[in-house]
Amino acid sequence: MALREQVALMFSRRGVPATADNVLITTGSQQGLDMVGRTLIDPGDRIVCESPTYIGALQAWRPIKPQFDGVAMDENGMLIDQVDTTRPLKLLYVLPNFQNPSGVSLSLERRRKAVEMAHRHGFIIVEDDPYRSLRYSGEELPSLLEIEAGMLGADWNANSRIIYLGTFSKVMAPGLRVGWMLAPTTALRMFVLAKQGADLHSSTLNQYIAEALLRNGTIEGNIPFLVGVYRERRDTMIDALQTYIGKRGTWTYPEGGLFIWLRVYGANAQALMAEALKHNVAFVPGDAFFPDGSGTDTMRLNFSCMPPDKIREGIRRLGELIAEMQPAAPISGD
Amino acid sequence: MALREQVALMFSRRGVPATADNVLITTGSQQGLDMVGRTLIDPGDRIVCESPTYIGALQAWRPIKPQFDGVAMDENGMLIDQVDTTRPLKLLYVLPNFQNPSGVSLSLERRRKAVEMAHRHGFIIVEDDPYRSLRYSGEELPSLLEIEAGMLGADWNANSRIIYLGTFSKVMAPGLRVGWMLAPTTALRMFVLAKQGADLHSSTLNQYIAEALLRNGTIEGNIPFLVGVYRERRDTMIDALQTYIGKRGTWTYPEGGLFIWLRVYGANAQALMAEALKHNVAFVPGDAFFPDGSGTDTMRLNFSCMPPDKIREGIRRLGELIAEMQPAAPISGD
Repeated sequence: MALREQVALMFSRRGVPATADNVLITTGSQQGLDMVGRTLIDPGDRIVCESPTYIGALQAWRPIKPQFDGVAMDENGMLIDQVDTTRPLKLLYVLPNFQNPSGVSLSLERRRKAVEMAHRHGFIIVEDDPYRSLRYSGEELPSLLEIEAGMLGADWNANSRIIYLGTFSKVMAPGLRVGWMLAPTTALRMFVLAKQGADLHSSTLNQYIAEALLRNGTIEGNIPFLVGVYRERRDTMIDALQTYIGKRGTWTYPEGGLFIWLRVYGANAQALMAEALKHNVAFVPGDAFFPDGSGTDTMRLNFSCMPPDKIREGIRRLGELIAEMQPAAPISGD
Repeated sequence: MALREQVALMFSRRGVPATADNVLITTGSQQGLDMVGRTLIDPGDRIVCESPTYIGALQAWRPIKPQFDGVAMDENGMLIDQVDTTRPLKLLYVLPNFQNPSGVSLSLERRRKAVEMAHRHGFIIVEDDPYRSLRYSGEELPSLLEIEAGMLGADWNANSRIIYLGTFSKVMAPGLRVGWMLAPTTALRMFVLAKQGADLHSSTLNQYIAEALLRNGTIEGNIPFLVGVYRERRDTMIDALQTYIGKRGTWTYPEGGLFIWLRVYGANAQALMAEALKHNVAFVPGDAFFPDGSGTDTMRLNFSCMPPDKIREGIRRLGELIAEMQPAAPISGD
């Protein structure tokens, strides 16, 4: 079976009536963003996204010069009610599960609203979902694509407004660079042509590897192991933040994924990073994730790649630096 | 050693003082074309290319809406003297060895002229060179890049005007999708950023494979075998064309590569292909390779992928179809 058939099968099991003709294999899901940019985005188009949002989407699309309209988030994800639908809107870009960089997930109610809005107002949703399988607590939520498929039934392929981006990078190996786009066939044909111009096709060797590991259950079978390891690391980092940052900041509690989002009152995250690197502690300053460059007091912490003792020690060092840079009593409240 | 160091070494052995900082690994050389398009080409820019030229370059660059200015070729490649340098020229795109689709190579004298012109008039050369190692007869010629390196000496990196695209697709395995760009470091840094937006990076597994096969001599060691097989196939096709097409057309005599270019007097290659497919014979109608869509009586024949007996039989069937479609005595001439 070809990989794209395997991917389609994965979705049809979840109630999305997709076939191989709805799937394009890409070089990671990053290339899916590029294909969307090449085919659907024109200069000046309004793109509504979470604020902060995935930096790779900004990188992929900025050269086309759209307008990014960032919408604030709370612990239930993007504030969908604040999306202004009175002005032209080309696409809504959303990472519903354990968002990069914030770690928060979009609530079920907001997922439904977003899908309804896309159909009422005629815009496209790009659902970027690389972390879904990495859930450590809470209940799994249906993707926007699944919600839409339930709504449209047999008309899904004819009327879908969603382009779904997935990847094996987080559950198999990022270095294989195997991702996919799932979209209505009319859109998919455009992506296929755009990909031909970009790189002809993705490595067949890597597609064979992914197909075999998917078919024989290796990928699925390895997820409980990953979930166990990452859950402990998340819990360790949350605990260390409580201990070493405490009232000097606020942070998110991700139910999965790779990231915790930290805000430190009055901090300059760029300056803090320069200091932290001297102590062998790294994070990504948050401003780069904001379409408008705000969020200078925020930072993205990754908890997936270090063992618990290093996480604890890293947050301890970070806490010390923050205490030094922020000697005054912190302002209470977020 | 990283793959890009290996690639740089390959070039420094040929007198190009390149280091790993001059090399970006790409998903085949097609992605190199895409990176050039993203970073160097603006709408309306004039691109001088061979006519016919590689269809994948047209596909990669057409969405940006440059002007393609195709220059005619003879058996020594593009007629460099006909390149109009009185009008603004952004880049010259050339496949110097066994060009796709025509099979012809650019003569040494014209290579030198092209390099001199680029420096005199300040345009960029994109040298697309996927077939160089597959030479079956004639003498190896230095690439435009090597000629330029000889001219510039120690100033090569500071003053080079050439972006060289290479690939392991023709000498290792196309399905691995490992190619490279070699360029001055100032240009290369732009390509690196553009590639991050496009797909983050190319598969590390495939880079390891290519690096190992390059380092241990497997790739180099396999070339005589490929050359032997392909030379016999080229010779078979040339012989069959003489036998079965004869005076009804003209064709090129490639000294290497994968393609022979056939022109049949008065033929409509699109209609001929429709007929040929019914007889299990395939070729690519030539008009798609012309920036201006001319060349409707031309076709690209691939001699690399079939054994000699099938090549002979294919050309026999093609000759029959041409004789049926072209009952009148052919016009004599070129």
